[in-house]
Amino acid sequence: MNSTNGTRERIIEVAKSRFHNRSYADVGIREICDMASIQKGSFYHFFPSKRDLVLAVIDNFALDWANGFVAEAFDPLLPPMERIDYVIDAAYFWQRSSKELNGHIPGCLFGNLALEVSTQDDVLRAKLNAVFISAKDRFKDTLDEAIEQGIIPPLDSEFTAEAMLAYLEGMILLAKAKNDPEVIYRLGSALKNIRIELNTH
Amino acid sequence: MNSTNGTRERIIEVAKSRFHNRSYADVGIREICDMASIQKGSFYHFFPSKRDLVLAVIDNFALDWANGFVAEAFDPLLPPMERIDYVIDAAYFWQRSSKELNGHIPGCLFGNLALEVSTQDDVLRAKLNAVFISAKDRFKDTLDEAIEQGIIPPLDSEFTAEAMLAYLEGMILLAKAKNDPEVIYRLGSALKNIRIELNTH
Repeated sequence: MNSTNGTRERIIEVAKSRFHNRSYADVGIREICDMASIQKGSFYHFFPSKRDLVLAVIDNFALDWANGFVAEAFDPLLPPMERIDYVIDAAYFWQRSSKELNGHIPGCLFGNLALEVSTQDDVLRAKLNAVFISAKDRFKDTLDEAIEQGIIPPLDSEFTAEAMLAYLEGMILLAKAKNDPEVIYRLGSALKNIRIELNTH
Repeated sequence: MNSTNGTRERIIEVAKSRFHNRSYADVGIREICDMASIQKGSFYHFFPSKRDLVLAVIDNFALDWANGFVAEAFDPLLPPMERIDYVIDAAYFWQRSSKELNGHIPGCLFGNLALEVSTQDDVLRAKLNAVFISAKDRFKDTLDEAIEQGIIPPLDSEFTAEAMLAYLEGMILLAKAKNDPEVIYRLGSALKNIRIELNTH
């Protein structure tokens, strides 16, 4: 990585952690520059605005997430429905260790941003929605595989996948409001039993 | 209502709608004063800070919600499980009509605020959590009644109620990210089938 890339990546890392642990609005460019040890001019060289930065943060985090958490949980070597249990375990342990580190459950960066900015910025909203669609698709592929293998009876895998993602985001939301990762642990068992039947909507 | 109460209530109404449709951080005291047609001095007479105002907004909205949406949905004259269907219908129609009015789904004020402020302010977080606990209790009472009447088999009504609230908040979150109230409509059927078994956690 050359130093230009290094500076850009450093800005993204600093911003990602602060947006996630606080909020988009609460973190200013000056603070990001201070924490990344750069001048404002250097910031604007890479990002014309804070909004351009948050767009890059979403891309960066979505990639980390796809290669880390999501790839691990949706490991094709695991039996399909065990992958869904794994999602819960991964979410639980990640939120719990974040709380041990920072005192608070940060929640899901994408869920946080979606509720903070969706009414105000359709470009940001669409980018976050694309991340949710890609997460939903991982659930859908898993459900389709489980149906094909006769592990679960047929269901509407597209909408059940969306319902599972909704439940996951909702559990994380309540866990954040309680600042208690155990919410995810105790509610997690219901995730894989969520079903939207074919042709019932 | 005397004019002192009138001014305080007007500030709360103006702030409630703006916090809900945008975000807590995005709405400043100056804008609230302008929209409520008052001077800043008058604002500070009622609310020492924006934080004091949002605490009052949460109380006010929780009361409106308990007397409106929640009282209607959890009408004891309805059969218990029909109340849960009613929650979905009410959430769907409310978000849909808000979108028709303002162009965007505002989501749930409590969910929005919880994700925006929970890591930064434990007093605000606890107040929002208390609203969630009270909503969860409405689901729990309904489930206990349904079990007692033999309508559903026994389950862990405390944790199932929490799971139902999580799913509701999660559906609203995805609907807001998509700016599409139909998410609530198509996923809603799964709400009343969510179950956390006794002693499985």
